[in-house]
This record gives sequence, C-alpha cells and structure tokens, in this order.
Amino acid sequence: MVKKLALFGVLFGMAAPALQSPVEPPDPGMKTLVQVAIVSRNAEATAKQWAALLGVPMPKITLTRPGREVKVVYRGRPSEGQAKLAFIPLGQVTLEIIEPVGVDTSWKEFLDKHGEGVQHIAFQVKDLEGSLRRLEKLGLTTLHRGRYDSDNGTYVYLDSEKALGVTLELLHSDPKP
Amino acid sequence: MVKKLALFGVLFGMAAPALQSPVEPPDPGMKTLVQVAIVSRNAEATAKQWAALLGVPMPKITLTRPGREVKVVYRGRPSEGQAKLAFIPLGQVTLEIIEPVGVDTSWKEFLDKHGEGVQHIAFQVKDLEGSLRRLEKLGLTTLHRGRYDSDNGTYVYLDSEKALGVTLELLHSDPKP
Repeated sequence: MVKKLALFGVLFGMAAPALQSPVEPPDPGMKTLVQVAIVSRNAEATAKQWAALLGVPMPKITLTRPGREVKVVYRGRPSEGQAKLAFIPLGQVTLEIIEPVGVDTSWKEFLDKHGEGVQHIAFQVKDLEGSLRRLEKLGLTTLHRGRYDSDNGTYVYLDSEKALGVTLELLHSDPKP
Repeated sequence: MVKKLALFGVLFGMAAPALQSPVEPPDPGMKTLVQVAIVSRNAEATAKQWAALLGVPMPKITLTRPGREVKVVYRGRPSEGQAKLAFIPLGQVTLEIIEPVGVDTSWKEFLDKHGEGVQHIAFQVKDLEGSLRRLEKLGLTTLHRGRYDSDNGTYVYLDSEKALGVTLELLHSDPKP
C-alpha cells in the first residue's frame, strides 16, 4: 500500500512529505530532551522573572565570544553574531535564556520573525557528524553552528521550523583527550 | 543595599519589575519541567515528522472533548474550543503536539499570533490553588483552563508570554479517592 501510494505520488508529481524516508535509527541522545531555549529582548529581565517564579538565585548572565572566535557559521557564512546567555536547571532539562547581540544568528532571526518565545529545543548526541548525515537524509540542513565558548564542544541548529514546528539543536561535547 | 535601592525606587516613582515581589517558595513541582508543547496546523503531519526524526512509532492522535464538557474557560469565559493532541515521551519531558480545533483557546490564539511553534512549557504541581495564588502575587493571571478528558486532573495556562517569554502551564492530578 505504501509502495502504491509512492508510485501514485511519483506519477502525479506529488512531493513526498519531508522526514518520512526510512533511515537508520537515531543517536541514543535523541531519546532525552536536555534544553529548552527562550529568545528574549533582555536576558537579564527575563532571567529575573524566571528566578522569582522558580524561587532560585538570579543566574549569571554571560556574553558569548565574538562569532568568528568560536567559528559561528549562520546560513552558510561566517558570522560575528553573539548572545547574552543565562541557564536555569529544571531537572533533566536546562532552561536557556538568549538575548541576541549583533546580527547574523538564528537567535536574531527568530526574534525578528516571531518576537520573544521558545526558539529551540536541544538534544545531546554522541555522534554529531553521523547525526547530521542522518538528519540531512530526513531533509534537515544546518541553519547555524558554532563552538562552545569553552572550546570543548559544538552546537548545531537545524533548519527545522517548518517540518517540526521548532528549531532543533544538537549539542556535542568533544571527546576527552 | 537592596533596601536603599527599593527606597530610591519608591521616592522616584520607578515601577518595580513584575515577578520581583518577595513571595513564598514555589510548589516543589516547579523544580522539574515535564512538558514542552508545540502548536501545529496539522497534528498528524507534525507528529509523523517527529516520529521519523526520533525513530519512534507514530503516536496516537486524540481529539479532546468539547470545551464545555471539560469545563474549558478561556479569558474568563466558557469555551467550546477543542484540540487534536499527540504525545511523545522524551525522558522526564513529554513533547505534546497540539492542533487547535474551533476557536476560543490559547492554542488558537498562539497560532493566529505567532504561527506554529512552542506554545507552552508545563510543570506538575502538588498544590494547584496555592500555586495559582502565589503566581497571582507575582502578576500572573489565568489565561485558559480546563479538566483533563479523563476527568482526573486540571490544567491551567498562565498569561505569562510577556513576563517569561512563553506561556506557563500548571498540571494537577486529582488526589486519589
């Protein structure tokens, strides 16, 4: 039945829906959500509200290094974009608050397009390159990537808003030397 | 120093930022995020994409009961609004996919205002009424509430987009008889 539908699709020029191709199983890290990230116009103000809500101390606000220092690439081009960040642990998941600084990042793009809101959710994978190859087969390409400020890991955002309703982020810590 | 700043604020008529009043500690359930919910125009299509991405079976799609049967109240008025729902577990957190059906719900409001995206994140509280009183002191009022379809619990959405960057949901299971 699936084959007949596929043939029907080919004959009548219907595009197969994205993400439906049979592919290898995902990285084991894709079973556990680890991060929910809110883009805000003012990270400090938003973090204060969350700290009051949750009854926790105000988290530290940090400014990421300039984009080129941490190999930021946004939509295929090197970017100098930065962000102010705050993190609040909520069990297995960390709430991240992001204030875009400068242009040419997925954070700024989200704020311009949607206003404040949840920009991405993240998974921590063991095999980053394998995961990216699998996601490419599913139709998801890289939107924005960079190194952690600590230079001991890489983050990659996938261009998944249309397919998944939200931007997906993969996090990957470098293997310990 | 904090007292001096507060006095300065009072003397010079500065508005204290919302959610900053000292209030009692939050419900212990506020330490653990339990749900991230995406509003979609087509729950089935979005759930299929997620199932393919995560390598899990397609989740069941259910239609909630008509609003008045499950005591839905939206912006202070009874609502007949419904939704199609799908749930995918991701460790401690469940990913919820919501397709608004009918009008007068926070789901439809979000879709009209922002398009598809993460509409709310949820916490499971032990004391719902106490939590709502505390949130009211912090400036957060109820946006939308209703009973679970199973009639064994209540959900409440808070009007928190401006303060927190996302709608907050409290979930509360009825005490077992």
